[in-house]
Amino acid sequence: MKFNPVTPDVVAALAAIVGEEHVVLPAAADDMFRYTHDETEDLRYQPEIVLKPANADEISHIMRYCHENLLPVTPRGAGTGLSGGALAVHKGVVLSTERLNRIIQIDERNLQATVEPGVITQVFQEAAIAKGLYYPPDPSSRGSCFLGGNLSESSGGPRAVKYGVTKDYVLNVEVVLPTGEITWTGANVLKNATGYNLTQLMVGSEGTLGIITKIVLKLIPYPTQNLVLLVPFRQEEEACAAVSKIFMAGIIPSALEFMEREAIEWADRYLNLHLDRPADERAHLLIELDGNDMDLLFKDAERVYEVLEQFDVGDILVADTEKQKAELWQLRRNVPHAVKGNSVYKEEDTVVPRAELPKLLKGVKEIGRRYNFKSVCYGHAGDGNLHVNIVKADMSDEDWNHKLPEGIKEIFELCVSLGGTISGEHGIGLVQRPYIGIALNPVQLHLMRGIKDLFDPHGILNPGKIFLSSKEVAMQAPVLQA
Amino acid sequence: MKFNPVTPDVVAALAAIVGEEHVVLPAAADDMFRYTHDETEDLRYQPEIVLKPANADEISHIMRYCHENLLPVTPRGAGTGLSGGALAVHKGVVLSTERLNRIIQIDERNLQATVEPGVITQVFQEAAIAKGLYYPPDPSSRGSCFLGGNLSESSGGPRAVKYGVTKDYVLNVEVVLPTGEITWTGANVLKNATGYNLTQLMVGSEGTLGIITKIVLKLIPYPTQNLVLLVPFRQEEEACAAVSKIFMAGIIPSALEFMEREAIEWADRYLNLHLDRPADERAHLLIELDGNDMDLLFKDAERVYEVLEQFDVGDILVADTEKQKAELWQLRRNVPHAVKGNSVYKEEDTVVPRAELPKLLKGVKEIGRRYNFKSVCYGHAGDGNLHVNIVKADMSDEDWNHKLPEGIKEIFELCVSLGGTISGEHGIGLVQRPYIGIALNPVQLHLMRGIKDLFDPHGILNPGKIFLSSKEVAMQAPVLQA
Repeated sequence: MKFNPVTPDVVAALAAIVGEEHVVLPAAADDMFRYTHDETEDLRYQPEIVLKPANADEISHIMRYCHENLLPVTPRGAGTGLSGGALAVHKGVVLSTERLNRIIQIDERNLQATVEPGVITQVFQEAAIAKGLYYPPDPSSRGSCFLGGNLSESSGGPRAVKYGVTKDYVLNVEVVLPTGEITWTGANVLKNATGYNLTQLMVGSEGTLGIITKIVLKLIPYPTQNLVLLVPFRQEEEACAAVSKIFMAGIIPSALEFMEREAIEWADRYLNLHLDRPADERAHLLIELDGNDMDLLFKDAERVYEVLEQFDVGDILVADTEKQKAELWQLRRNVPHAVKGNSVYKEEDTVVPRAELPKLLKGVKEIGRRYNFKSVCYGHAGDGNLHVNIVKADMSDEDWNHKLPEGIKEIFELCVSLGGTISGEHGIGLVQRPYIGIALNPVQLHLMRGIKDLFDPHGILNPGKIFLSSKEVAMQAPVLQA
Repeated sequence: MKFNPVTPDVVAALAAIVGEEHVVLPAAADDMFRYTHDETEDLRYQPEIVLKPANADEISHIMRYCHENLLPVTPRGAGTGLSGGALAVHKGVVLSTERLNRIIQIDERNLQATVEPGVITQVFQEAAIAKGLYYPPDPSSRGSCFLGGNLSESSGGPRAVKYGVTKDYVLNVEVVLPTGEITWTGANVLKNATGYNLTQLMVGSEGTLGIITKIVLKLIPYPTQNLVLLVPFRQEEEACAAVSKIFMAGIIPSALEFMEREAIEWADRYLNLHLDRPADERAHLLIELDGNDMDLLFKDAERVYEVLEQFDVGDILVADTEKQKAELWQLRRNVPHAVKGNSVYKEEDTVVPRAELPKLLKGVKEIGRRYNFKSVCYGHAGDGNLHVNIVKADMSDEDWNHKLPEGIKEIFELCVSLGGTISGEHGIGLVQRPYIGIALNPVQLHLMRGIKDLFDPHGILNPGKIFLSSKEVAMQAPVLQA
C-alpha cells in the first residue's frame, strides 16, 4: 500500500470541488512558497497541490475523494506551528482553512462564540473584548495564527497559568472526518456527561483525526485591571524556585513568565530598547496580576513582594501604565524572534510540574555542558512550561546533526523523570516524532494508533505526524521511520 | 458469542487473586445487597460475584482472566450514581474499588494530589483544605461518593459554574485496561501537547474503557471568604432569566443554584425547618460569591442586586454567618433526598446553554401538561444544568411505564434543539441509554463504538452502559436493546 500521486486527473477533480481560483499548483512557485514551510526551523516540503475550500461541504467532498483515491491530505491553518505539523511530508494535498475565516456569532447571552477555524486568534480576542468578553488563550503568534491551529496543537501561551489553555475553552467542534462525514463532537454546554469526550480527543490531535470546520468557544467576563512586575534574580534557579512559592502563597498570577539573561538581552538588542540591565541579573520573572479591583491587585502584589524577599532579587520594576506594560510584553513576546534571528537553533517545548523547574533548568545546562551546546531558556514558568532554545553557535554541523539528538533525548528523558512530558503547547508534529517513545509507552501508542485507524482507515490525513500510523508502518517508508 | 457464567472454578480463580476475605457471593445475601443497586430509582441487579481488589496489579490479573474467559466486569465506586452505571446488568463480576482508598500525596509545592479511586470526595476535600488547598468539584453526594466514580461520570456539582467540573481537575490517571495492561494516560502537568488526550477520553467514559487505579488532580489555593444570597422570584422563568444576566454583568458566582417552589418546600418539610416562605414565591436562586476579600464580595453582591432589580423578586436573604450559610446549603443539598422521599420519581439531568434555561423550563412544563406528569425542577442554573424530577404522584403504572418515556424523549429533544444535551453530570449509564440516539448521531456512535472495541475487544467491561457495544449488538441480547 502506497499513497497515489496527484495526476492531472486528480487536479481536475479537486479543482472542480473548490473552484480553480482556489487551487495552487507548484508551477505558481511564488504562491506555493508559503505552503512549503511553517515556523519550525528551516524545513521545506512542497505539496503537489494546495486547496482552499470555502466550507465543510467542500472539505467533505475533498476528503471523500482523497480517501477513495489514497491521496495524503495535510490540513493547514496559518502555518505558524513550531513542530512541523502543517508540512506535507508525504507530498499530496495541502488543505488550507484560510477561507473559513468568519466569526459566526459572539453570543453575549451565553458567553459563547461560534467561529470558523481560519479566524486569526487576535482578531477574535479583539472582537470579544469589544463586547466586554475575554478569550484568554494567547499564543505568542496570536497576531497571525488561526484558532483552528490553536485547537489542533492545544496551544497555551502566557495566560494559561490562570485561565487554562485552548482546550479549556472548547465546548464543541464541527469536524470533517478523513472519510468525509461531517459531525459535531459534543454540545454547546459547560457540562456534558453524554458519551465519550470526542471534543477533547479532537483538540490536540494535530490535524490527524479530522479537519475542524466550526468551533464553539467559551468566553468569560473581561478583567478590567492588571499590573505587571519585572523581577530580576541573581541566580537562574532561584527565579524558577520563586515560581512555585508564589502559588503556595495563595496567588494565581494571570501570567508568570521566566526569561534567562540571554533571552531578555537578545530581545532588548532585537528591539533596540537599550534597557542595559545590570550585569549581575541572571534571569527575570515577568509577573502579571489581573482582576477588577486595583486595590486588591496592589494587595496581591504586596504578597508577591513578601515571597520575593526570600530570594536574592534586584530592583523590581512595577509597570502600571499601559505604555510600560506594553513594553514589557513586547520584550517577552519578541524573545522567540530574537533567538531566531541570532543563530540556527532548535526549540524544545519542555514541561514539568512547576516546582520541578529548578531541576529541569539545572539539568538542561548540565546536559548542555556534556554535549557542548548552549541553550537560552524562557517560557511559561507558572505552567512549568520551559522553552529550551538550543543555539547552534559554533557547534559543528556533524555534532549538530548527529550528536545533538542524543542530548535532546536526555532533556526529554529528564522531563519525563520529573513527571512532565516532551511538549506542553507546540505539539509533536514532525520534529518531535523521533522522541515520542520517551513520552508514550507501547500501550499508549497502541491505543493512539488504534484511534487513528478508526478515524482514518486509509491513513491519509496528516500522515507522518505525532507517530507513524499502522498504515505508514505497513508502507515501510524508510525516510520517515521514527 | 455470549458471556460465560461464573462457575465454581471461576470463583476459585478470582478468589485466588484477591484473597477469599475480599470476595462476596450471593449466598451472603446481607453483604451482597449493597452491590445490587446504586442511587438510581429502584433498580436491582445481582452480580454473580463481587471482588474487592487491593491494587492495580490485582485488578490487572482479574481483567486478564475475565478477558480470556469472557466474563462481564462491572466496576463500582461508592454506588451513589444516578444513571445505573455501577449495576451488573449482565451479571458476572462486580469489581469494587473500595479498598483503593489512599490519599497517596498532597503535593503543596506543585498544587497537585495523587489519590486512589476509592477515596471519598469530601474526605479528600478536607485533607486539601487542611493544607490551604481547594478541590472544588462538589457533587451532592460528596460525603459518600468516591473520586473514581466522580471521574467516571464527569461529575459536577454547584461549584462548577466558577471552577469547572471534575474533568477540569484531572491531570493524569493510571488505568487498567479491559485486557489487563496497566498504563498512565498522560503526565502530571498543566499543559500537554503530546499525543491524543487519553486522560479526557477516560474521564466520563463511565467505566467502559478501563478501571481507574490512580488519579493525579490539580488543586488551587483555597478562597477564604464567601457570601450566600437566597433570592425569591415570583415567576420561575424570571429566576432562570436572571441567571444569564448575572454573568453578563461580569460576575462569576461560585455557585448559582435554581430551585422551584416545590423543591424548597419539600426540602423544608424533609428537614423540619419551618421556613414558611411566602406563598407568592415560585422559585429561588441560591447565589454564592467567593474570593479572598470581603469588601470585594460585598461590591460584587451590590452588582448582583442591581441585576436583580430588573426582576420581580421578594426579600433577599443574605447569609454571612457560617451557620446561616450552612443552613441554606443544607436546604439545597437535601432537595434530592426530599424529592426521593416524596414519591416514586425519575430524575433527568438536562443541560442547555444557560441563557436557554427559561425555554427549557417552560418546555418541560408544557410537555408535562400534555403527558399529564408533574415535575419538580432544580439544579445548577449557572451551568444551564437543570435536574428535572418527574414525580409519579397519581399517574397510572401503565402511563408511567409506557407513556412517560415518550414525554422524556420530548424533553431530551428539546434540550438538543436548544444546543444542549441529555446529561450534564450524571452520565448515560443504563437508564438514559434508550435515549442516546437523541444526543448522538450515527457518526458519533460509530466512533464511540470503535473506541470501545479498541480498548475492550471482547466487550467485557461494564457492558450495557452508554450504548450497546458492537459485541452486545452481535449477542443480540433482546432485553438490553436500546
